Amino acid sequence: MKTAITLLTDFGTADYFVGAVKGAILSVNPRAVIVDITHEIPPQDIAAGAFTLLAAYKTFPAGTIHVAVVDPGVGSTRRAIIVSANDQFFVGPDNGLFTYIYDREPSHRSFHVTSDRFFRPKVSTTFHGRDIFAPVAAALSNGIAPEEFGAEINDEVRLPSLETPLRIIHIDRFGNCVTNVTRAGKGVVINGRTISEFRRFYGEGDDESLFAIRGSAGFIEISVNGGSAAQILGVERGNEISLTGLQDLQD
Amino acid sequence: MKTAITLLTDFGTADYFVGAVKGAILSVNPRAVIVDITHEIPPQDIAAGAFTLLAAYKTFPAGTIHVAVVDPGVGSTRRAIIVSANDQFFVGPDNGLFTYIYDREPSHRSFHVTSDRFFRPKVSTTFHGRDIFAPVAAALSNGIAPEEFGAEINDEVRLPSLETPLRIIHIDRFGNCVTNVTRAGKGVVINGRTISEFRRFYGEGDDESLFAIRGSAGFIEISVNGGSAAQILGVERGNEISLTGLQDLQD
Amino acid sequence: MKTAITLLTDFGTADYFVGAVKGAILSVNPRAVIVDITHEIPPQDIAAGAFTLLAAYKTFPAGTIHVAVVDPGVGSTRRAIIVSANDQFFVGPDNGLFTYIYDREPSHRSFHVTSDRFFRPKVSTTFHGRDIFAPVAAALSNGIAPEEFGAEINDEVRLPSLETPLRIIHIDRFGNCVTNVTRAGKGVVINGRTISEFRRFYGEGDDESLFAIRGSAGFIEISVNGGSAAQILGVERGNEISLTGLQDLQD
Repeated sequence: MKTAITLLTDFGTADYFVGAVKGAILSVNPRAVIVDITHEIPPQDIAAGAFTLLAAYKTFPAGTIHVAVVDPGVGSTRRAIIVSANDQFFVGPDNGLFTYIYDREPSHRSFHVTSDRFFRPKVSTTFHGRDIFAPVAAALSNGIAPEEFGAEINDEVRLPSLETPLRIIHIDRFGNCVTNVTRAGKGVVINGRTISEFRRFYGEGDDESLFAIRGSAGFIEISVNGGSAAQILGVERGNEISLTGLQDLQD
Repeated sequence: MKTAITLLTDFGTADYFVGAVKGAILSVNPRAVIVDITHEIPPQDIAAGAFTLLAAYKTFPAGTIHVAVVDPGVGSTRRAIIVSANDQFFVGPDNGLFTYIYDREPSHRSFHVTSDRFFRPKVSTTFHGRDIFAPVAAALSNGIAPEEFGAEINDEVRLPSLETPLRIIHIDRFGNCVTNVTRAGKGVVINGRTISEFRRFYGEGDDESLFAIRGSAGFIEISVNGGSAAQILGVERGNEISLTGLQDLQD
Repeated sequence: MKTAITLLTDFGTADYFVGAVKGAILSVNPRAVIVDITHEIPPQDIAAGAFTLLAAYKTFPAGTIHVAVVDPGVGSTRRAIIVSANDQFFVGPDNGLFTYIYDREPSHRSFHVTSDRFFRPKVSTTFHGRDIFAPVAAALSNGIAPEEFGAEINDEVRLPSLETPLRIIHIDRFGNCVTNVTRAGKGVVINGRTISEFRRFYGEGDDESLFAIRGSAGFIEISVNGGSAAQILGVERGNEISLTGLQDLQD
């Protein structure tokens, strides 16, 4: 079937990894529509992968199959899983990569992938993206039900909460600091500086002040016109922040 | 319909932005064929985006829809537009990104996109690529006429001319310096050095001299074998150049 | 026809090159399924391109057409070729890029592409990826037989052997050093250090020792948990290595 299969990995784009995964998908379903989300998740950074998947999955249509591979435990006993949620499927390692999907989609169901008849004939210990996740996703896209791949489970591995502590959960290409704050406060305190101005869009003022804005992933971001807020603030992902007050978002 | 929708942005490939745009397209037209041109336009560099679009659009078939998003004014009053030209469509912000298309395609028509029934249900102030341009392009690919999106306009925002002053308009991955000269001169003077040799192809000589060549985008480039002409010359995009004489291109 | 056409180039992803190639393909076969393998082959590094193609091609289904362009000799007398092997096609310059395919697929056939009726109307001297290889691949995907493009040849240009000397043939994103050793030795000696531990998967131990592992491309790699083996060893691609003994691979 002509189903979209997205890829989100930490493979980078310089190696043969992404190509090999795409070939493995097309060998099982030549009609699959392969869509790159990103391959630039920092190596083995499960939380970064989980955030990016969270921020992207909602725009895809029902039936989409998301393959996510950030997999430091490849070859070990960590499980391969299929998650059914939001009328979509998620395929990857059971290492917390789908944590934020579980949080947003309480009626999700998860399956431990064990039926090796859907795997490539020879499964390596180092590249399950190619040998397990790709062909399993392609089999799903061919209409195989998730129950066919293995037993349902309820004890998926989860990352620590996205909600606490208050912190910077992502820094984007433009240097915007995405926080895990979902309601605008009177002020956000980062690295000793208080940002108390809230703007509606990036170019609202012409000055070079830092300001808060409701970002497109649904979180409050700290930004600056024509520059990198992260650089000005001297912060990195994971740095904790605090609020000076709380009020409803002005949107 | 099975129409190609290309993407040219400054989103980079590490964030969720590109994935979210692709999902938004497929949600409106699951049969759209999404083609990445590039997402590596330098952040908010409208002129760089305009050049890359100029150099790429001609090879695409009739009916192609190009979505271009380099959009520092997102959320402000800058208009969203559809340009119909060369039997293709161009969708993006009205900030000059399509200037060189207007120049090359004098019979183009432009439309101010205002019909929000084609937008995503909730439009953010920070990500019109996902919320406006993607669904509008997908609606176009479904056969909606450009007139349906809003009124025709004739006052599109334009960048300064690509023709003057004589300058380096692009430096490519190989360090080739693309100038805005379209006819070979006796010599090109860059940063105090005169390049007077004209070669037909990159590997024509074995030496390490700088030379001029007619590049694949239709402009004269300054190159060197096995190295970066830009580095040798110590130049950047935008640096002005001069000519020591003019003659017809030898092609 | 709905055939997969893969792209493997040294074009990078920031320029107009990749977009122009994709457009040129779709103009000849709008139903072609374009698949990016990588565009990050180091500029003009034919051996790197050959390795990546080797490591990726096997997963693709029969009928796939691989376009590979690492082409320092573009515009010179180097030939354009089509290679038929493994029920797939390979299209690109005759400069050794397909050497390892010849080695793995002894019954391959090669054709010198000379029929310019399959080229774009105007062929540049600097961008055969767009003007020759793309439209030729698209014509192949439309069902044109390889014989139609030119005469069969048996004297393809070849790179030096992948088998000798023993060396590092690739360093991947994670810093794993891929060697050209295909059987595990008692120890691999690199830059004065002997790595004698062989592990089955990357996360097998928790320590920070260097170890050997059978990698997913079929070669022995030197790795380390949570770090870059290449950085620890201070090595680059091409560095020679030696073995302290030989035994069968433990897989």
